[in-house]
Amino acid sequence: MTEPPLLLIPGPVQTHPRVKATMAQDIAPWDNDTRTRYAALRERLRAIAGGIEGEHVCLPLQGCGHFIVEAALRTFVAPGTKVLIPNNGNYGTRMIRLAREAGRVAVAIEIPEGELATAQMVEKALAEDPSIGTVAVVHSETSTSVINPVEEIAAAVRAAGRRLIVDAVSAFGAIPFDLGAHPETDAIVFSSNKCLEAMPGIGVAVARVDRLEACRGNAGSWSLDLSDLLHHARSYGWGSIRFTPPIQSLAALEVALELFEAEGGQPARLARYTENARILYDGLAALGLTPWVPRDRQGPIIVTMHQPPDQAFALQPFVDALKRRGFLISNFSTTSVPTFRVGAIGHLFPDDMRRATAAIADTLEEMGVRHLARAPLAA
Amino acid sequence: MTEPPLLLIPGPVQTHPRVKATMAQDIAPWDNDTRTRYAALRERLRAIAGGIEGEHVCLPLQGCGHFIVEAALRTFVAPGTKVLIPNNGNYGTRMIRLAREAGRVAVAIEIPEGELATAQMVEKALAEDPSIGTVAVVHSETSTSVINPVEEIAAAVRAAGRRLIVDAVSAFGAIPFDLGAHPETDAIVFSSNKCLEAMPGIGVAVARVDRLEACRGNAGSWSLDLSDLLHHARSYGWGSIRFTPPIQSLAALEVALELFEAEGGQPARLARYTENARILYDGLAALGLTPWVPRDRQGPIIVTMHQPPDQAFALQPFVDALKRRGFLISNFSTTSVPTFRVGAIGHLFPDDMRRATAAIADTLEEMGVRHLARAPLAA
Repeated sequence: MTEPPLLLIPGPVQTHPRVKATMAQDIAPWDNDTRTRYAALRERLRAIAGGIEGEHVCLPLQGCGHFIVEAALRTFVAPGTKVLIPNNGNYGTRMIRLAREAGRVAVAIEIPEGELATAQMVEKALAEDPSIGTVAVVHSETSTSVINPVEEIAAAVRAAGRRLIVDAVSAFGAIPFDLGAHPETDAIVFSSNKCLEAMPGIGVAVARVDRLEACRGNAGSWSLDLSDLLHHARSYGWGSIRFTPPIQSLAALEVALELFEAEGGQPARLARYTENARILYDGLAALGLTPWVPRDRQGPIIVTMHQPPDQAFALQPFVDALKRRGFLISNFSTTSVPTFRVGAIGHLFPDDMRRATAAIADTLEEMGVRHLARAPLAA
Repeated sequence: MTEPPLLLIPGPVQTHPRVKATMAQDIAPWDNDTRTRYAALRERLRAIAGGIEGEHVCLPLQGCGHFIVEAALRTFVAPGTKVLIPNNGNYGTRMIRLAREAGRVAVAIEIPEGELATAQMVEKALAEDPSIGTVAVVHSETSTSVINPVEEIAAAVRAAGRRLIVDAVSAFGAIPFDLGAHPETDAIVFSSNKCLEAMPGIGVAVARVDRLEACRGNAGSWSLDLSDLLHHARSYGWGSIRFTPPIQSLAALEVALELFEAEGGQPARLARYTENARILYDGLAALGLTPWVPRDRQGPIIVTMHQPPDQAFALQPFVDALKRRGFLISNFSTTSVPTFRVGAIGHLFPDDMRRATAAIADTLEEMGVRHLARAPLAA
């Protein structure tokens, strides 16, 4: 049997062999050994978020990134009230839909795809509408590769006396956001299978205790109620997991956090991903491909390139041929014009990126793709 | 390193070594190989439910049993309308809470713990309140070991012209319910980690297409909207998974279904569990322990016994000592009086039950527990 391909995608990411191996066991979630480890896992995640003991709590939830985003919106935005959502890509659009279907009034700031959400936009929108209580922002907009300036947006929210929710699903662990320095932030939410390099199945919120208490009764869903997760922990202990979790993914997350800490934590991970993304960006551009965003807006999570405007190119055959060479990239495009994207996160290293770039070059040649450059970069 | 203990719990259950081994891999959910397998997995689950092609669809959802129950309630019961829920244990109580927090009017039939929900009770309640549109019933009430007569209840619901939701979380795969013979049933819901003997992380609904179409717009939650799962499949294909799933658990479920079919499907599984439960029930009763329910109400999923009324007995030390002997049982009680419970489901066989019974006898002796019999059985 051949080696499975490396996953060069924005999650579920390629994991360390020890993380994978941890999945292959039966575990009872309420076992006392499990409880001790689970309570410790929560503390570690709170600390990575910069959460302050007594002020912030870590609330893992079964499911996925969308579920934890909806849970945060339901919990911290009362039904029928307004949440401002800057929208510069797929995940912004998704957050708007999650809010609206939950009966919240999503006020969108529509931003051209690939551009950044700015503090000025948020400041203006909040000044214009005093009835907006909360801002929810995507930290890493994976669909276009850009990282929104959440620190600056948070400052604007704080100055305006409003509340913030940070969707850090594909950023947490690599792109810094220090919850302890951000009292305006109700919660930062993320998932297990992105920059923490663990397995899918778990969404996590690190949230303010005072706000969870103040917002009890908002959610309109027992399953997706973060305030109830706090209540559960207080009633049954911080080692108790409400409802059956994908417990293997929690065990794998524990191993992934050991590896995260051994690597040097968030700064080391950011440095590795930045180098990974740089190698991809420069390498693919050097082949003649056109990047989707200019270098100054290129984040370290994923690199998006225009598809070559050549009849010989088609995405699925390209993905298939690359897979045969040992690299699996997304077989769908998340931008309004045809692009392909290569993930820089996961248990992947600069040399993997160099090999992937070479494999892409070989594949394009094999396919007979000659016209690589698309349009000039967006201004 | 010693062998980990066998899980004698009502889920997550002990799994086959092949199921566990399948967890230890990285998988891209949208990969074409994954898509083909996922579409086939859905068809197999629909068939196990007795669902009819074109009439019923299989809709897996990230999360757990509670999430898929809430999703069914939100989808098939419009906000502010009534759902009748017979309540004879913890899972009935939980379903009532899920409905109420979702803004549905839960009308409870309160039934003494350990007794059965009957068709007569449902018939009477429906006759008394014509504004009740839907009945939701727990098939296997794990908290007390009883199996509610869902076939009979379904007939009463059908005769009254109402709709039914079956919470078969801990029953599906072992206790039969043929969806094809039950046009009054909107959906049967279950999870991956019970009688299907796979890993946790996935809830599943097998639901009627016509009702999913009629109920579009009810859910008030994008995450928990079963109608949207149908819409997603129609838009992106039956191999497409909406949002990132715990994909390892889906792969493990595929292996678990192979084993399920090789064993002889639902009848074989029911026969094995029935024999497992009989050995536990008889063996523990023969030690002098008092069963929580009389034999005629004892289901095949889990056996619940009164805790011995002896000062020398305490649940956690008992569980710990049994764990040292290789068997892990729940360290909490789910009845109003102190009980302990031993699971009969999972990749476990009659000989495991005999060894577990012997281990329980040894443990009680080691603890110096002399008075084993509790009260006489409930009438």
